[in-house]
Amino acid sequence: MHSQNAQIQESFNIFDDNQSSLLSDFYTFLRFESISTQKEKKTELNNCAKWVKDYLLSAGMQVELWETATSPVVFAEWNKAGADKPTLLIYNHYDVQPADPFELWESPPFEPEERDGQIYARGAQDNKGQCFYTIAAVKTLLEKSRALPLNLKLIIEGEEEVGSAGLPTIFEKHKKDLQADHAIIVDVGVHSLDRPSITLGLRGICALEINLKGSLTDMHSGSHGGLAFNPNHALVQILGKMRADDGRILIPGFYDNVIELDPTILDSLDLAFDKESYFCTFGTKASGGEKDYTPIERAWLRPTLEINGLNGGYTGEGFKTVIPALAQAKLSCRLVPNQDPKNIMQLIKDFVDSNLPEGISCEINIEHGYGPAVQTSPDESLVQVAAKAISDVTGHQCSFIMEGASVPIASALSKVSGAKLLLMGYGLPSDNIHAPNEHFGIDRLKLGFATITRIIEKLSEEGL
Amino acid sequence: MHSQNAQIQESFNIFDDNQSSLLSDFYTFLRFESISTQKEKKTELNNCAKWVKDYLLSAGMQVELWETATSPVVFAEWNKAGADKPTLLIYNHYDVQPADPFELWESPPFEPEERDGQIYARGAQDNKGQCFYTIAAVKTLLEKSRALPLNLKLIIEGEEEVGSAGLPTIFEKHKKDLQADHAIIVDVGVHSLDRPSITLGLRGICALEINLKGSLTDMHSGSHGGLAFNPNHALVQILGKMRADDGRILIPGFYDNVIELDPTILDSLDLAFDKESYFCTFGTKASGGEKDYTPIERAWLRPTLEINGLNGGYTGEGFKTVIPALAQAKLSCRLVPNQDPKNIMQLIKDFVDSNLPEGISCEINIEHGYGPAVQTSPDESLVQVAAKAISDVTGHQCSFIMEGASVPIASALSKVSGAKLLLMGYGLPSDNIHAPNEHFGIDRLKLGFATITRIIEKLSEEGL
Repeated sequence: MHSQNAQIQESFNIFDDNQSSLLSDFYTFLRFESISTQKEKKTELNNCAKWVKDYLLSAGMQVELWETATSPVVFAEWNKAGADKPTLLIYNHYDVQPADPFELWESPPFEPEERDGQIYARGAQDNKGQCFYTIAAVKTLLEKSRALPLNLKLIIEGEEEVGSAGLPTIFEKHKKDLQADHAIIVDVGVHSLDRPSITLGLRGICALEINLKGSLTDMHSGSHGGLAFNPNHALVQILGKMRADDGRILIPGFYDNVIELDPTILDSLDLAFDKESYFCTFGTKASGGEKDYTPIERAWLRPTLEINGLNGGYTGEGFKTVIPALAQAKLSCRLVPNQDPKNIMQLIKDFVDSNLPEGISCEINIEHGYGPAVQTSPDESLVQVAAKAISDVTGHQCSFIMEGASVPIASALSKVSGAKLLLMGYGLPSDNIHAPNEHFGIDRLKLGFATITRIIEKLSEEGL
Repeated sequence: MHSQNAQIQESFNIFDDNQSSLLSDFYTFLRFESISTQKEKKTELNNCAKWVKDYLLSAGMQVELWETATSPVVFAEWNKAGADKPTLLIYNHYDVQPADPFELWESPPFEPEERDGQIYARGAQDNKGQCFYTIAAVKTLLEKSRALPLNLKLIIEGEEEVGSAGLPTIFEKHKKDLQADHAIIVDVGVHSLDRPSITLGLRGICALEINLKGSLTDMHSGSHGGLAFNPNHALVQILGKMRADDGRILIPGFYDNVIELDPTILDSLDLAFDKESYFCTFGTKASGGEKDYTPIERAWLRPTLEINGLNGGYTGEGFKTVIPALAQAKLSCRLVPNQDPKNIMQLIKDFVDSNLPEGISCEINIEHGYGPAVQTSPDESLVQVAAKAISDVTGHQCSFIMEGASVPIASALSKVSGAKLLLMGYGLPSDNIHAPNEHFGIDRLKLGFATITRIIEKLSEEGL
């Protein structure tokens, strides 16, 4: 315990001793206007990638820029531990969201400014702050120890804010480069610094669009009401049958591959849910999902089917009594481990087809950005090491959570690397990410620096 | 039979003898640009109303212009038969649809031109043609016989094409003036001149908008899927429960006041329905409505509930995985006799309220342009007289049809007048009403002239 605390204290000391040069590098990183959604920022993105490359070259890593249709992926490797030693892969991104509305920023978004220990800039947290403490920790460690018994790989992309469009091709092409034993995505947050956590799992996703077609054009609902079958009716009848009053999805086979969660995983999770706080924040009760499960089980651990969009007929002001020619629904499912997105989409298609009334035809469009769920057991060595590091660094017990949302890149990364994967980070809900006055605390740069350092040291020490 | 034919022949002769002066008056009527939806045509509408007034004054009628917020209603009365004699009320309108796109007209829309026996102009059929043969017949009859044993009333409005917005107030104010025993709306058509018909009934209508509300704003369907109840789900579940797979409406009480149609009415109707022709024209099978009824029964004689509009969440291109804050449906019902629109709307509201899931609130907006169904028995003396007149004038057996659509003015007129009501006219599907090159045949002006004359003569002769 003492030795661990000593090592963490040493990290803290290194950070403090080098704070001004660390912040100077961080500010340089923040000044690149690496906005991936704006084509005219291509040079800024390239320059930013090059700066990250040079930073990691100076740490002694081998670095490559992998070109995509837009911004390059920075891939850095330190493999001197040897092929028989374990490998840790860390993911970050260097691209940021646009900064407008500019008039709401108290200081210019690409001119970092410190106020009360917080650094204000676009990307200060998401994800340049979290990326910077990662690369700074790696650089410091490699400079300190040229004989680490652990191989390191960093993948830092420049398209996260526009959906990581280039990564599938990159993963296809560089499958071998990306092999690892452990993988960490450093791009999430904690509830508060005294309630730190690791995210052990994400739900998967699949999405499809159902288009029901009746007559050639919209028709008068007086003259044709009782004759033409209304696609809106067909749609609500089919969608209405998909879900029982108790929230259970009624599509045959939907739950067939769902494995009930391992009780040890369930026991490890922080399942606390504050109903009143939820109502105050969102204005609605947490009354969705399957009645037989608790709110957090429903949000993290059970699959869902949501109607994201409904559209058919006249939707303007007032009334227009039509039987529409078309009706459309956009659906998406959140999936749990062992559910295959393609299979689920096929089950939904079959359900729609088998419930189509006479006179209505159907066209189903599949969304391609789907992916399966990711889940890592709290018993995994990486999880144990990271949790200990976070607890020790923050001085508060690290809890395990999951996330109901999907990060397609997480499942793809887990799949391509073959690694056990977790998500961590020191974002806070109050950081204003994607909004004016985004900021990140120097205290959290230091915690992140020490945490990444400690995780690498510990994995090395234990030969995991 | 011989005497009837002789009287019809006399009408035909009068029309032929006076054709050039009749057409001259008709052309004058057509030249007014009485487009009710265009505010800048107010003077044209007023001038047109004044022309109709003068025309009927010259026939010896008492005529008033009843002002509305836009164009005046022309009300003409001939009450010299005395209060103990029956009264016939006839409805037309003098306003027309806009004429654009002008470039598609072969001759200017407000400069009538005859080509091959058809007169081309905006309003040539709808409704100036049908109005003109009506007022020409009335004028000719009154000039011929100053001692008709039947009182006549004409109501000719100038707002039909914009929803007859002024009529409810007019009806309220002039209830006494509008009392009648028989009422005819001369504003419809026939399938063809060798298949003439009278329209005995129209369905009623009520409409409402259902707004379901969940959270304060749209939410992420990953993070909140399983927590927040999706208003889209609530909507499809409620709407899906409104209708059985066999097309029957499942709202408790919906059919309670529906009276099964009198077999004599059913026997009198032309229930022929050509499924193949329907499919060719509209591109869909006539598979809607209640399976236990024939297509024409479903279209004319059974009530319906149609979802005219569905809207909730993301409906643009691609996908956005939201749980929307709101979901909306616009519904309308077509009603049959003895169903009260207000009562039906209340039943729907109750159904929605009693099926609302926890976490979803509801706001229902009522559309005010509703009205009950109208239906007249084929045994009514007016119907018998009109059918005989149409059969004799056209030389083809007049059939009885109904219409699934609603004409709110029909039920209001029937109610305010206390009269038995039918709808007739000599429009044809090929007349291009509301479109470029609208036209009406001189042959049909003549048939209409003779039919209105014959109906008035016959009601007079028989003292009905």
